[in-house]
Amino acid sequence: MSGSPAGDRVGAQLAFLLEADRLKRVVRQNTLADGSRRENSAEHSWYLLLMASVLAEHAAEPVDLLRVLRMLALHDLVEIDAGDTFAYDPDVTDKLEREQVAAERVFGLLPDGQGEELRGLWEEFEARATSDARFAAAVDRIAPVLLNLASGGRAWRRHAVRVQQVRDRNRVTGEALPAVWQHVQQLLDDAVVRGDLRP
Amino acid sequence: MSGSPAGDRVGAQLAFLLEADRLKRVVRQNTLADGSRRENSAEHSWYLLLMASVLAEHAAEPVDLLRVLRMLALHDLVEIDAGDTFAYDPDVTDKLEREQVAAERVFGLLPDGQGEELRGLWEEFEARATSDARFAAAVDRIAPVLLNLASGGRAWRRHAVRVQQVRDRNRVTGEALPAVWQHVQQLLDDAVVRGDLRP
Repeated sequence: MSGSPAGDRVGAQLAFLLEADRLKRVVRQNTLADGSRRENSAEHSWYLLLMASVLAEHAAEPVDLLRVLRMLALHDLVEIDAGDTFAYDPDVTDKLEREQVAAERVFGLLPDGQGEELRGLWEEFEARATSDARFAAAVDRIAPVLLNLASGGRAWRRHAVRVQQVRDRNRVTGEALPAVWQHVQQLLDDAVVRGDLRP
Repeated sequence: MSGSPAGDRVGAQLAFLLEADRLKRVVRQNTLADGSRRENSAEHSWYLLLMASVLAEHAAEPVDLLRVLRMLALHDLVEIDAGDTFAYDPDVTDKLEREQVAAERVFGLLPDGQGEELRGLWEEFEARATSDARFAAAVDRIAPVLLNLASGGRAWRRHAVRVQQVRDRNRVTGEALPAVWQHVQQLLDDAVVRGDLRP
């Protein structure tokens, strides 16, 4: 109800959620597991939430799963304005600045207090300085690896990605989810043998 | 690592997650907010998780947000086998049976203990007998209403939906999220005036 304090909060929150809907139109580089089309950042975010929920038992450090899930739900929202940046793109010099401007606008749609709280979770994710943020980052980095493995390396082939680039980018996965990373490392070796990933 | 107990669990969990990826190809009736295309069940699930995280303060009963988010992340997984059923479709007689068979197969991919736990969360969501499940159901029902409102009633027009059907289906929203439902009721009245929704 416009006019009442609770109604004003609801109105601002629904405006934020309508804006967030645009994340469904941000297209990433990797495809779905079956290779049928490229993934968007909204369904990617869902995938990370499910993955975090299933793999939390393997976290190397204690994590607060509620904070991780809330963080993952909003971790890509800045892409609504800033776009998706490919993980192995060398030309990302203005990414940080674009994302900060986007965060200001998007989280600024939320009512007092909540905008700051959610932006704080996003900043924490970006900084990777807490166990929650490292676990979230590990899930974010291993997910496209799994989908590339399943699709015969679609995005890897298109961008001529080398196995060492995948290993470097997943250093945080080895730290935060060692049992998962150990399992996936074997699959990466197989992908190189198949020619899906460059040596 | 295949062979070790932890490695076997990881292998089963990754097999489940690869199967879950198929939810991205299940198409729902409602469109995105901009009407550009129909929504899929994976990006819909993400939207509910973000919505629950933002709107939790309005819950009429105390809720455990972590349980709600885990529940929402998996609430539509049975659609991988059973398909999406339109909310206002009168011909849904075999829906329950199809979904039970799907739950058996999909959650059965998970390792011992975890399959039962996640299936239990899904059964709880379906039964709507706890405050967590009612809150999750309210979010699930209000989300397509918001997207229909934003898109000029795309799915409502296509299926000739009447405002009373939306109100009936959102009874749980009025109970679990009264401030949100109060706000949206006004928007529904406006939609009827515009002809986006039948009186």
